[in-house]
This record gives sequence, C-alpha cells and structure tokens, in this order.
Amino acid sequence: ERTGVPEAVLADGKTTAEVADLAATAVETTGRALCTRVDDPTAETVTTALAEEFPDSNVEYDERARTLVAHAPAFDPPALDADVGVVAAGTADAAAAGEAATTLTEMGARVTRVSDVGVAGLHRTIDALADLRAMDVLVVAAGREGALPTVLAGLVDVPIIGLPVASGYGHGGAGEAALAGMLQSCAPVTVVNVDAGYAAGVQAGLVARSVDSARTDGRR
Amino acid sequence: ERTGVPEAVLADGKTTAEVADLAATAVETTGRALCTRVDDPTAETVTTALAEEFPDSNVEYDERARTLVAHAPAFDPPALDADVGVVAAGTADAAAAGEAATTLTEMGARVTRVSDVGVAGLHRTIDALADLRAMDVLVVAAGREGALPTVLAGLVDVPIIGLPVASGYGHGGAGEAALAGMLQSCAPVTVVNVDAGYAAGVQAGLVARSVDSARTDGRR
Amino acid sequence: ERTGVPEAVLADGKTTAEVADLAATAVETTGRALCTRVDDPTAETVTTALAEEFPDSNVEYDERARTLVAHAPAFDPPALDADVGVVAAGTADAAAAGEAATTLTEMGARVTRVSDVGVAGLHRTIDALADLRAMDVLVVAAGREGALPTVLAGLVDVPIIGLPVASGYGHGGAGEAALAGMLQSCAPVTVVNVDAGYAAGVQAGLVARSVDSARTDGRR
Amino acid sequence: ERTGVPEAVLADGKTTAEVADLAATAVETTGRALCTRVDDPTAETVTTALAEEFPDSNVEYDERARTLVAHAPAFDPPALDADVGVVAAGTADAAAAGEAATTLTEMGARVTRVSDVGVAGLHRTIDALADLRAMDVLVVAAGREGALPTVLAGLVDVPIIGLPVASGYGHGGAGEAALAGMLQSCAPVTVVNVDAGYAAGVQAGLVARSVDSARTDGRR
Amino acid sequence: ERTGVPEAVLADGKTTAEVADLAATAVETTGRALCTRVDDPTAETVTTALAEEFPDSNVEYDERARTLVAHAPAFDPPALDADVGVVAAGTADAAAAGEAATTLTEMGARVTRVSDVGVAGLHRTIDALADLRAMDVLVVAAGREGALPTVLAGLVDVPIIGLPVASGYGHGGAGEAALAGMLQSCAPVTVVNVDAGYAAGVQAGLVARSVDSARTDGRR
Amino acid sequence: ERTGVPEAVLADGKTTAEVADLAATAVETTGRALCTRVDDPTAETVTTALAEEFPDSNVEYDERARTLVAHAPAFDPPALDADVGVVAAGTADAAAAGEAATTLTEMGARVTRVSDVGVAGLHRTIDALADLRAMDVLVVAAGREGALPTVLAGLVDVPIIGLPVASGYGHGGAGEAALAGMLQSCAPVTVVNVDAGYAAGVQAGLVARSVDSARTDGRR
Amino acid sequence: ERTGVPEAVLADGKTTAEVADLAATAVETTGRALCTRVDDPTAETVTTALAEEFPDSNVEYDERARTLVAHAPAFDPPALDADVGVVAAGTADAAAAGEAATTLTEMGARVTRVSDVGVAGLHRTIDALADLRAMDVLVVAAGREGALPTVLAGLVDVPIIGLPVASGYGHGGAGEAALAGMLQSCAPVTVVNVDAGYAAGVQAGLVARSVDSARTDGRR
Amino acid sequence: ERTGVPEAVLADGKTTAEVADLAATAVETTGRALCTRVDDPTAETVTTALAEEFPDSNVEYDERARTLVAHAPAFDPPALDADVGVVAAGTADAAAAGEAATTLTEMGARVTRVSDVGVAGLHRTIDALADLRAMDVLVVAAGREGALPTVLAGLVDVPIIGLPVASGYGHGGAGEAALAGMLQSCAPVTVVNVDAGYAAGVQAGLVARSVDSARTDGRR
Ligand SMILES: Nc1ncnc2c1ncn2[C@@H]1O[C@H](COP(=O)(O)O)[C@@H](O)[C@H]1O
Ligand SMILES: Nc1ncnc2c1ncn2[C@@H]1O[C@H](COP(=O)(O)O)[C@@H](O)[C@H]1O
Ligand SMILES: Nc1ncnc2c1ncn2[C@@H]1O[C@H](COP(=O)(O)O)[C@@H](O)[C@H]1O
Ligand SMILES: Nc1ncnc2c1ncn2[C@@H]1O[C@H](COP(=O)(O)O)[C@@H](O)[C@H]1O
Ligand SMILES: [Mg+2]
Ligand SMILES: [Mg+2]
Ligand SMILES: [Mg+2]
Ligand SMILES: [Mg+2]
Ligand SMILES: [Mg+2]
Ligand SMILES: [Mg+2]
Ligand SMILES: [Mg+2]
Ligand SMILES: [Mg+2]
Repeated sequence: ERTGVPEAVLADGKTTAEVADLAATAVETTGRALCTRVDDPTAETVTTALAEEFPDSNVEYDERARTLVAHAPAFDPPALDADVGVVAAGTADAAAAGEAATTLTEMGARVTRVSDVGVAGLHRTIDALADLRAMDVLVVAAGREGALPTVLAGLVDVPIIGLPVASGYGHGGAGEAALAGMLQSCAPVTVVNVDAGYAAGVQAGLVARSVDSARTDGRR
Repeated sequence: ERTGVPEAVLADGKTTAEVADLAATAVETTGRALCTRVDDPTAETVTTALAEEFPDSNVEYDERARTLVAHAPAFDPPALDADVGVVAAGTADAAAAGEAATTLTEMGARVTRVSDVGVAGLHRTIDALADLRAMDVLVVAAGREGALPTVLAGLVDVPIIGLPVASGYGHGGAGEAALAGMLQSCAPVTVVNVDAGYAAGVQAGLVARSVDSARTDGRR
Repeated sequence: ERTGVPEAVLADGKTTAEVADLAATAVETTGRALCTRVDDPTAETVTTALAEEFPDSNVEYDERARTLVAHAPAFDPPALDADVGVVAAGTADAAAAGEAATTLTEMGARVTRVSDVGVAGLHRTIDALADLRAMDVLVVAAGREGALPTVLAGLVDVPIIGLPVASGYGHGGAGEAALAGMLQSCAPVTVVNVDAGYAAGVQAGLVARSVDSARTDGRR
Repeated sequence: ERTGVPEAVLADGKTTAEVADLAATAVETTGRALCTRVDDPTAETVTTALAEEFPDSNVEYDERARTLVAHAPAFDPPALDADVGVVAAGTADAAAAGEAATTLTEMGARVTRVSDVGVAGLHRTIDALADLRAMDVLVVAAGREGALPTVLAGLVDVPIIGLPVASGYGHGGAGEAALAGMLQSCAPVTVVNVDAGYAAGVQAGLVARSVDSARTDGRR
Repeated sequence: ERTGVPEAVLADGKTTAEVADLAATAVETTGRALCTRVDDPTAETVTTALAEEFPDSNVEYDERARTLVAHAPAFDPPALDADVGVVAAGTADAAAAGEAATTLTEMGARVTRVSDVGVAGLHRTIDALADLRAMDVLVVAAGREGALPTVLAGLVDVPIIGLPVASGYGHGGAGEAALAGMLQSCAPVTVVNVDAGYAAGVQAGLVARSVDSARTDGRR
Repeated sequence: ERTGVPEAVLADGKTTAEVADLAATAVETTGRALCTRVDDPTAETVTTALAEEFPDSNVEYDERARTLVAHAPAFDPPALDADVGVVAAGTADAAAAGEAATTLTEMGARVTRVSDVGVAGLHRTIDALADLRAMDVLVVAAGREGALPTVLAGLVDVPIIGLPVASGYGHGGAGEAALAGMLQSCAPVTVVNVDAGYAAGVQAGLVARSVDSARTDGRR
Repeated sequence: ERTGVPEAVLADGKTTAEVADLAATAVETTGRALCTRVDDPTAETVTTALAEEFPDSNVEYDERARTLVAHAPAFDPPALDADVGVVAAGTADAAAAGEAATTLTEMGARVTRVSDVGVAGLHRTIDALADLRAMDVLVVAAGREGALPTVLAGLVDVPIIGLPVASGYGHGGAGEAALAGMLQSCAPVTVVNVDAGYAAGVQAGLVARSVDSARTDGRR
Repeated sequence: ERTGVPEAVLADGKTTAEVADLAATAVETTGRALCTRVDDPTAETVTTALAEEFPDSNVEYDERARTLVAHAPAFDPPALDADVGVVAAGTADAAAAGEAATTLTEMGARVTRVSDVGVAGLHRTIDALADLRAMDVLVVAAGREGALPTVLAGLVDVPIIGLPVASGYGHGGAGEAALAGMLQSCAPVTVVNVDAGYAAGVQAGLVARSVDSARTDGRR
C-alpha cells in the first residue's frame, strides 16, 4: 500500500460543502487534510467546520499558496533528513511555488524558499547558486517564457523539476510557452503540468524520501 | 562548474563527419563521448574513426537504443551507490528506454531494466512491483495513451519520471497523447519530452547522485 | 422512421423559456421530455411550468446529472432485457456518467452504476470485475489522463464506450488529454466527445436494444 | 482472462523480421496471427516464413485492407450469430474499412460490406437503408468532412461506430475534420481514432459477441 | 470607389457610447446604419439616441439576429432583382443566419428563410429542395458537425456559402468542427468564419448584385 | 439531379491504374474527364490509355495546374455568358489558380487570368482594377500571409472567393496563416480550403451559371 | 547594467494593493513608475495612493491605452533625437498602439501617431506615406487579418515592428491570425506578441536610442 | 519606390531552372541576385548558368547559410556606417544565422558574428557582452527552448531581433517552443518566424540604414 504521499482535495470545481466533507473524512481517517486551490471564502467555511468537528485540531490556510492544511491533535507529522529548494522567478510564480512548498512540508522535507531570481536579472540568480547547490532536489517555478529552470540546470548539478506557471498572454500564454520551453530545454530538466505545484511537491518529496532513507539506513 | 552530467552529441540532423568530429573532441577533452540517435551507418563510420584516433579506446554501439559510447583508455567511469529502474511497456518503447539506460549507466547508476509491463496486461505489472519498490527512482517509458506511469505511481512510492514515446497514429499520435496524459496524471509524476530518453536519464542520474551522496557521506 | 432514441433538449445556451417550451412540446408529441445540462433555477421553473400544463405528469430532476425527465401520465416507458454498466472513476466524473445513466434508463436499459474505481486505486477496480463482466456493454467515464477505459478494456471482454470528462487544468486540460488517450488506447475502445454523456447513453442504449432483440426474438 | 479479442501485430514501424517473429509466435501460441498495416513486400516475406514454419497453415493477405491472417491447421475459428455492417463512403475509405472487416471476420461475426454510399450521392445511401437496418451494429468509415455516420445515425436505430479516414488536405486534413465532426455529430455516434479499423472491428466484434450470447443462451 | 457594401458597426467589444456615436455618424454620412452583435440594453440606448438625433428615422432591432438597422427619412434602400436563400439547421443557428439575412436585406436582395432542415431529419431537407433550387445563391448556417452545406451541395446546383455556427462543446466545439468540415466538404462549398453572418451576407449580396446587373442590363 | 458540376478525379493518393480507370469511366459515361493533382508520369500514362480507348478524343494536360482534361469526340462543352477573373499573387500561387481556371473553363465560364499582383507591389494591383471590376466573380489565390483578397475586397465590389495557397514555412506555414487571415479579413470574402482550386472553381462556376441564366432568360 | 528600459508593472492579474505597492517602490527607487493594463478603478486607487506618498509627483492615466505613469518631482525624463511612428488600423487597435506610444514617450522618443489607415481603405494609407517615410522606425498595430504591416513594408523602407491585436472572433481570432500573418509576411517585418504594446514600445525605443546615439556622438 | 531591400529568390519549392531564371533576371535588372535556401546541386547549376550569361560577374555560394549571391561586374554594393551583431547559440543555429548575415552584408551593414554562446554555458555569453554592447542592433538565433535572446535582452540595451530555429523534437519542436518563448520573453524582444534569417536580416539592415543616415546626415 502507498503511504508516503498525502492525498489532496482539489477544491477547484467542488462546492464548499464537498470540500468540507472530504477534508473532514481525510482528518478522520488519516489524521490530516491537505486542500489545494482554496479561495478565501471556502477557506473560512472549511476552517470553521473542521474546528467544530475536531476541537483541538490545527488548521492553517496559506492565502498566497491557496492551500489549507488540517492536523488532528494526535497527528504525528513525518520529518525527512533531506533539503528541497523551491525557487520562484517572480510574484506571479508565488502561488504555484507555494503549493509545492506546502506539499513538501506535509511530506516532511526541509524546504528552502528562494524568490526573485528571474532570468532578466541574472546576478540575483548567480548570488543564489551556493544555496541551491546545497539542496538534494529543486522545484523551479517560472511563467512567461519559463527560461529559469534551463538557466539553473546549466549551473547546478542538483535534480530540477520545472514548474511552468500560467502567466503571460497572447500566443503561448497560459503557461504553454513555459511548458514547451522546459520540455525543449537544452539543459535537461523534468517537468510537471502548468501550475501543478502539488505534483511538483509530491515528486520532489519522493526524491527527499529516497535521500532520507539513504541517509538514515544507508538502504532504501 | 558542472561536472556530473555527460554532454551528449545528438546525431540526428548532423552529418556523419560532424558527429565523428564532435565525438573525437569529447573523448579528447573529457575521456568519453556519448552520442544519441545514431543510425547504423553513422555508428560504423564513427566507430572506425574513433578507433583510429584513439587506438586503445573502447567504443560500444547499442543498435536498439541508437546510442554510441566511447571511453578513452584512461577514462575512469563513475559508480554510484544507487538503483534506477527503467521500465518499458512494449517493443516500441525500447529505443527511448534504452537511451535513458545508457545515459544512466554512463552516470554510474546501477540500472535495472523491466520490460513488457503494459497496462493491457496488468498482472505482469503487478508481478514486477517488489522489484520496482526497491529502486531509488524510476524512469517509465510508454507510448500510445501512456497510462503506465499513472498506474505505477498509484502502486509504488518511488519517484517516477514519465517518458512519453512517439508511437500511435491519428489524433494524439507521435507521443502527444502520452505526454498530455502524463502531465494530467491523477497520480502525480514528472515528465520529459517525447522520446527524450537522454533527459530522463540525466535527471534520474542526478537523483541517483543525491542518493549516493546521502549514502556515502550522509551529506550531499 | 427512427423511434428508439429519445430526443434531448440541451438546456445549455438556451433561455429558460425556450427550454420550457421545447420540453412541453416534447411531452405533448411524444409523451416524454429529456432535458440535459439543466441548472437548478432552470429546473425549478421548467418543473413548475410542466406541472401546470400537464397536471398528472411525473417530472424528475437529477441535480448531479443535471438532467430533467418528464413523463406524461399515459407514457409507457420502454423496458429492455439488457444490462449496461456505467462506471465513473471519481467525483468529477459523476455528472457525465449521470447524464449517460439517465439517457439509458429512458431507453429502457437496466443500469448498474459503479463508482470510485480510479486507476490510482486499482484494487477497487479489480474488486468490481465480476460485476462488470456480467454487463452487455459498459460506459466508462474518466477525466484527467482518462486511463480507466484502457485498464478495463485489458481486463474484460465487454464492449466499452469511453466517456472523457472535462476535468484537469493546464496542457491537455478540459478533457483533451482524456479524449486523446482513449483514442490512442493500446486496448481498443470506442469514444464519444468530452462530457457527452447523452451520446454515450444513446449508443450504449442502442447496443442494449440489439441485445434485447436477440434475447426476445432471437432475431433483430 | 481475456480471450475474445485477437491480438494484432501492428506491422507499421516494425522490421519485417520482427513482424515475422511476432506472427510466428502468435500462430504457435494461439493458433492464429492477425497482422495489420502490412505492405506488399512485408506480406510476401512473412507469408513465406509462416508457410515454412507451419507447413499446413493457411495464410491470407488482403492488399487493400493491408491485413495478413494466418491460421494453424488445427485452428478452430469462432462463429457468432450476429451481423455487422461495414460501410464505406468511397475508394479512399476502403483500407480502413477493410481492416475493420478482417478483424470482425476473425472474431467470427457475419460481415456485410456496403460501399459507395457517400453523402454527395444520397440516393445510394437511401437505397441501402433496409440492409443496414437488418444489422446488429454498424462500422461506418468516412474521410474528408466525415458526414456519413451522422447522416446514417439520423436514419437507422442500429449502434454506429464512426471510423474517420485520413483523406483530405489543408485545414482539417489527415482525418482531423472527420474525427471532430463525428465527435460533434448532432445524431450521436461513437468514434475510434483516425484509420483505426482494428479498434472499430474489435469493439463491433464485442457487440456482436454480446448479441450472439443473447441469441444463443438468452443470457450473456 | 466601393459603394455597394454597407459598412457595419461591430458592437461586440465597444462601449454603448461608441456604438451610438458610430451609428449616428453612419446615418449622418450614408443615410443608414447597420450594427451587428448588439445586445438588448445596447439596442435600447442606441435606439433612443438615434431617435433623438434623427427625429423621423426608422430604427429596427432584431433580438434574434442581434442586428440594429437605422434608416434616415431620406434613405432610399437598394432593390435587387435576385433571390437569396438563407438556410438554418436548428435554433442555435438562428442568430448567425439572422445576421446574414439582415445584411442581405440591407443590400436589397430578396431573402427567403428556410429553417429546421438539419441532417438528422433529412426528409424536411428534401421537401425544401424545390424552393432552394429557385434561388440565385444560398447561405447555409450549421453548427456541431456542420454537415448541412455538404448535403445540400450534393443535391442542388446553386452557389453555396457555408456559415459555421459556434455551437457544440468538447473537441471541435465553438464551431471549429463545422468550419473544418465545410472546408473539407466532399461536395465543394465556400465558407466564411464561425458566426460570420455579416461576411456571408455581404458576399451573397455581391453575387445577388452580379445577377441583378445581368438581369437588368444584360451586362454588369 | 445535379448536372452542372464536373466530377473530378483527385489523382493524389491513387495509383496510376486507378486514375486511368476512373478517367475512362468518366469519359464513357459523361463524355468528359477532369483529373486534378496529376504529376507528369501519371499524365503520360493516362493520356496514352485514354487515346487508345477513345481514338478521337481530345486529352490535355496542364503541367503547371497539374490538371488533365479529356473530351470524347461527341462531347459538347457548355458555354456561359459570364466572366470570371482568376488572380494570383506570385509564382507559388500558379498551381492552385490554374486548377481553379481549368475547372471554370470546363464549366463554360469565360476566364481572365491576372498574375503578379502581390501586396508587396501594390501599383500592379491598382493597374489591374479596371479589368477586375468588369468580372462577375473573382477567385483570388494567395500564399504566405494571404493579404491579397483582403486588399482587393476593399477596392472592388465583385464577389471574391479567397484561395489560400500552401506556401511559407514555420508558424502558420502550409497555408494556415493565409486561411486564417482570409477568414478574419476586415473586408469580407468567402474562402475555400488550402490549395482547393477545384472547390474555388466549382463555386465560382456556379455563380457564373446564375449570372448566365439571368443574362439569358432573365430568370434562373 | 541596463538602464535605458523602464521596468513596467503589469496590472493585469495583480490586486490593486500590489500594483500600488510596486508603483510606489518604482517611484522611490527610479523616480518613475510605468503601469500597463490598468483599469479605471485600479487607476483611481493607485493615483490617490501615489499622490499621498509623493506629494509633488505627477501621475497620468490614459484610459484608452490603459497606462498609468508617475514621475517623482525630481525625475528628469530622457529625450532622444529620434522619431517613431505608431500606426493603428482601427478603433480596436487603439489600446495596444497607445501602450506602445506611452512606453516610447517614457523612453524619450518623439512619437507621431497615425490612425485609421486600414487596408480596407487604402487611399488613407497612401496619403500617410510621406509622414511614415520620415520616421526612424515604425510600430504598426493591426487586428483581424493583420495585413497593414505587410502593406506598409511594401511601400516604405523604414524598420517595421508589427503589433498584432486581439480582435476578431472564430478561427484565428484573439489575434492569432494577425500574428501568423505578420510572421509569414511576404514583405518582411519583425513582430511582438498579441497586444504586446509594451514590448513593441521598448524595442522601437531601443532603435530610437541607437539612432539618437548616432546623431549625437556619431558613435554609439 | 522601395530601393533599400534586396529582393530574394527563395529556392525552396522552385525548380533549378526557375531559380536560375529568376536569378538571371535579378542580375540583369538590379545588378545583383540573392538566392536563399539553395542546396548544393542547385547552387552548382545556377552558378554555371550565371557565369555563362554574365561572364565577369562574381557568384558566391555559402554552403552553411545556403545562400547564393551574384554581383554583375558593374554592381556597386552599398556600405552603411552601422554595426550589426549576429549571435548563434550552437551549431544547429548556424544556417539561419548565416542567412541573416548574408542578407545584412548585401545591405551594406558591418556584420560581427558571435557563436557558441548558449544559455547552458553562461560564462561564454558573459564574456561576449562588451562586444555585443558595441553593436547598433543584434540578431540572436536560438533553437530548442530559445532562451538566449531573453537572457541577452536582460543584459544589454541594444535592439534585439530574436530568430527562432527549427531544432528540437517532440512537443514544441520544429522551432515552435523557441518562437513562443521569444514572444513571451520577460525581457522584451522582437521576433521573426522560425528559420526566417532573411526577414531578420532585412529588418536589422533597415535599422542599420536608419543609424547610418543619422550618422551621415544627422537626419534621415
Ligand atoms: N493542485 C492539484 N493539482 C493537481 N492534482 C491535484 C491537486 N490537488 C489534488 N490533486 C490530485 O487530484 C486528486 C483529487 O481529485 P478529486 O478526487 O477530484 O478531489 C488527488 O488525489 C490528487 O492526486
Ligand atoms: N491497426 C491497428 N491500429 C491500432 N492498434 C493496433 C492495430 N494493430 C494492432 N494494434 C494494437 O497494438 C497492439 C500491438 O502493439 P505492438 O506490441 O506494438 O505490436 C495490439 O495489441 C493491438 O492492441
Ligand atoms: N458581425 C460582423 N462580423 C464580422 N465582421 C464585421 C461584423 N460587423 C462588422 N464587421 C466588419 O468590421 C468592421 C468594423 O470594425 P470596427 O471598426 O471595429 O467597427 C466593418 O467595416 C466590417 O467590415
Ligand atoms: N529565406 C526566406 N525566408 C522568407 N522569405 C523569403 C526568403 N527568401 C525570400 N523571401 C521572400 O519571398 C519573396 C520571394 O518569393 P517568390 O516570388 O516565391 O520567390 C521575396 O520577395 C522575399 O520577400
Ligand atoms: Mg545541472
Ligand atoms: Mg507513487
Ligand atoms: Mg476488453
Ligand atoms: Mg440512429
Ligand atoms: Mg451543388
Ligand atoms: Mg468588395
Ligand atoms: Mg519596407
Ligand atoms: Mg535589453
């Protein structure tokens, strides 16, 4: 049985009542709920509902990442001996990067956030290299032309998961140029779908687990 | 400086003379050449040329994977304490999976090949689960609808890099359906471009390096 | 003349008055109305209008399937000696599957609903196999990467109509990845358009009619 | 275990040796081989190879359908009490329709071919209606704008599987207009991928099996 | 100088004030205004504004066609000795067909409307053939798979302008399947863009002018 | 019955034998054959075959237009009192324009060819205006960005059928930019598919017939 | 360090508070803020906020161009000895052209606006030629089929930056036809993305700087 | 009349005889011919033909750029006081960059070639910055993800024309990812079509002319 990956409730396209129900069931059965793409009113209602049903639980909503996490009192969060860097080129990339970061935190990885390192201001990127090289795996979010993962993959030898972001307009907008560019990257990276911060987080978290196992037992 | 990733010569779209030149330069400067998408006549010419220029070098051509690897006599290949599984659904997936496997071998990872585990014959997939769970990271090649990475990601907790293969015809052919399906996978995976065995190999190899470092030093 | 297929009023893109009119005409001329893609306020208005115009008629609205069915008092519903399974992978697939199920019920088929059998939890799928093999034809709804029809077609020998669902986001979203994947399925299935529950229902219903004729007369 | 559907060897993209090998294995293990998309020289070589290896086998190549079928001497072909119509609009549709017909014949269905019934000459279509209404299921191949399945679905109450054909040029060429038109058909049909005669045949064959079971046992 | 084609104000994407201004200028300079894609509130405001500015003008708004036409008191409308048929398959096609009809009326053509002649009910189409054959040119609006112009072009020898309509959903929705189908039509037709009733009307009107000239002077 | 439109044999994708057969049947049954997209060797073989079978027939092959026309000795070609202009922007447009011209000639229209009037050399276009205004209908072929029909539609009041040509490379190549541009033309035109000279010819010919009827009988 | 290009705040997709913050920071650090795609309510709030924080600053909002520019009291605007023409075909092109013009003004170029010179009314275009030929570089905005840059590039020898505009509907709508047409233009031009007035302005401004340097120093 | 831009003969899609004819006419009328996309055998034939017809002419073929240039003895080539940099990321970009360079040379610009400055090896790019900043305008060719123009536009204030190159495979291959990325570039650039070296050269040459005029007369 798969146990390492937290199931997520994708709030987008569900009614508030459905999200609240699914979150409550998750807390009930696994001690935890992770909801993604939650807007403010939904967050408020779900938080209230969970607080009522699970009096001592801890519920946290991240407005930027649009994630809501609930832990039952008895929930024992995992902790991995592994470092994941979550890099974002600009403000527009914060939501997707945040979703990845929340997912990684829930999987127990140590997360380092690095922001404002876009290709149009390369010196900030270069300043961050030492930090990035110390990570076990990187998630790199970028919109528009999505060149940041390519540039970084030419500079560091850490695994890189490119996370294309739905910014930009016109031809190649809505993240399609960034996705295509990362798939064509002359310095190879892996990729998840546009704005799929949860998917990037899950896979980076699984790499962190492989590393943690190696560090802890020497064996997987 | 980046040292861990072997630069590859993409033979497709180059003349045989250009491939031979670039391979010779690579052997000269790094002790090794890795050429991809090499057809049989090109392989023959390049092998002869390298054998002449580097008398005691070792040159190997894999017809299925279409890769050619040359090692100078003094070349000391890396060896990582990490296991990578390379899974292929069917015959049509062998070339892309082979390119990933060669790249991984060159990066020093221990590679386990698993074949004929397509979703249309699930029992073979289920038989392979124990082996797959022992790996540190998986590359999973699949063409047509590309469902295999999704099915595996629901069954094992190992990081998975989906490698879509350009098989199929009609709408969504040439690997586009497989790519889109992996990006939409309800069990999250990361993805590389269609037939991009080298990119999948490089990234799986970098995960293997992170794991190897963790096993060896406890630290990266 | 074609008599077996109930004409449907597609409420989407029509005014409430137009839907009510068309439904009343259908009841008037054929004894029955089948409306699809009906939202809650439209359903309320149309129900009231039909109740007034046809005092003893029976009107039923299915909020999940978004279908509204009205039978005149004298309407004699068909009944086929044939079984159709309607399978849905997850919550997001319920609306499309429901539209297919309502259509099938109106055509007189015996409908068996099977839910929550997504590829990310294969054991539930395997548990359902015996039930599915007893059907004369299957409608299988799936969103995101749409792998469920492929997996089932590898396990059962019953005709399968794949029904792609408009879930997912980013590249291949809005059902396009699921549609392409079903068209490329390595285990062959037939397909209808994204969210086209009515079309899937009509065709599965026509198969049920062929089977019913065979059972009843031995001949068509 | 699935037994009803003959596995097919897709010759396109395989070497002649690979096709011969796979066909021999199929004859060896199942008493039969069905190869699709076989060109003339491949057919000749494979026929010779099979004749040598299985002296009393029967090998038939259909140049138009590009299918090659081999039966071991002991092979006992299935026979279903069910009728399938395979309709083709014009000459360009003959190959895809032929692939469906061969597949159906191998599954044991009684096949009726109807040709030259394009929408640009409606009277021929109307002349064929009585024949078509006597079938248990129809496969309807059409290229260019692909309107024939739509027109037929408005005239007969038999299940229809649309088979788009890769004819036409310019915008919507290569079968894409026909595929999109069948998916949008105002009279609902199911669809397979462009030129996917094998898939249409398999699914029509499974309907024929459901009907045959109903005729034979009354039950499936 | 071009004089025969009435310039149209495309209201979509303009503010109500801009539409009112442009319409007033048109009445002022040419004696007439033709506005397309006008919604109800815009129509009301523009009508009031024109009535005030041009006291004896005649303003007519067609809610279905979403066209608004204003004639100054002195405006002398053209009258052509030529017949144009405007055919619509269903309710969803009424708006586009209406825009074409209004444009044609303004160009002075005699317009015959034919409705409810969809391919799913061929007998109504066949009943209309005599009327259609008496026309000098036809505009044929159709959504979904857009097969009606193809079917008619196989039955009559009158020039046909196909007008694809943005109905349908899923793959090929928003009129793309209809457009592609008309471009691929096995019985040739000409085409305008999706919902481009004005363009269809202008070109059919120019054919009517060529015919009218021929009738009137014998020469153009 | 439709009699006015010559059926054409599309040689592309047919064997030489098939083209020869279909052409012979056409001459046999209608006194005439029109073959399109005929390459030089096919033309030679078909010409020889027709000459043998129909000793006194007249066969003409137009290498540029890639059309082959055969008339039986007794064939009485139609003659319409109507003028059609066939305009081509450049050398690359000659084949498509030629196919339209041949089709029109076969329908009996008087055809005027106008060449080298591309938008990059507007003065030649302006010089041709008087000639173009004397036509009853225009076919305007253009590749690359396809602006010529737009420019002409702003200058003359004659019906215009845009014929996009598959020239250009990169994004929007193969005629797609020209097609999209003509569909979006700010001065309305009708359009046929890329390189569809036959379709443009047929429809322009039907306009010519409407005009001819008007000139001859006053009535259609 | 890059100093010549004003960084712009893209208001679209940001909250009003974020735009106000970013604008204030820009004024603080560079003496100037340039915001694009600003709607009326955002403009009002941002203007008030800036006025409060920078009492003597000058803030200007252009409703048509949707740009907001703020200058700190001490800001010393650049002035280039170079002329840029900004040409717009119609009303729908005014916003994109306005964004380019504002950007150019901020870079210090002398800007000449030319409007209403669409290809459907060529004489106005021809009247403007003398003015256009006096410019050092042109930005030419056009929607629908986007033919204006092509027509101008055939008439003047000044560098031309095509700016496709998101007008039009149906196939090739949202500026895609205009973009593709400009990329295929038979008279070569350069292009920016759909509605990318800022990008066109920046690059035209850099040409103006090159010209200004040449005029001023003789050298760059 | 436009005089500054050399008309080019695009050899692709023309017969060798046509290219030779058009080239001869160009030499005859303008003293010069510029042919693009010329392959080796065509070059040989055309060179011989021109040498015969114009005994003292100078003909040069660039195998890499695939351009052929012929100057009549009396031809007086232009010379501009302006510098253009032509930058190429890798070997695959050499053909497109070469076509731009030849075009620029023919327009009289001083051309500086910079090669091997791809984003995967940033230090080489940074080494080249001083040279690039001394140019009046840059043409930057890049395939795969096409990130180089973006990176350079963040580092230099010179006008940049991005030239996407048709390298890469899979999704976004054939230059589409590079084109989309340049259009979305977070540091603005202008763009030409995929492999359109001639277009990039013409526009960069026109900028060079504007600069040259400014340097020479102070005025245009
Ligand atoms: N933000 C997200 N992006 C992509 N997939 C997600 C996201 N959040 C949740 N999921 C996946 O979607 C599934 C939930 O789907 P549902 O049953 O519709 O709630 C989860 O099991 C996750 O695998
Ligand atoms: N003509 C065909 N079109 C689509 N799928 C086919 C065709 N022929 C065979 N197949 C499928 O492709 C599989 C064979 O794939 P392969 O292992 O590559 O030979 C078979 O199991 C069939 O399901
Ligand atoms: N419904 C319509 N569809 C397509 N084009 C139209 C329509 N109405 C008006 N037009 C064209 O668009 C132009 C008006 O554009 P505008 O200047 O934006 O009002 C007119 O000159 C017509 O050629
Ligand atoms: N390599 C090229 N890429 C794009 N356009 C070109 C190229 N070479 C020539 N052209 C353009 O194409 C036109 C030649 O077209 P043609 O009449 O077909 O030879 C020239 O006037 C140029 O504007
Ligand atoms: Mg790296
Ligand atoms: Mg897993
Ligand atoms: Mg099955
Ligand atoms: Mg039917
Ligand atoms: Mg006709
Ligand atoms: Mg006109
Ligand atoms: Mg010019
Ligand atoms: Mg710059």
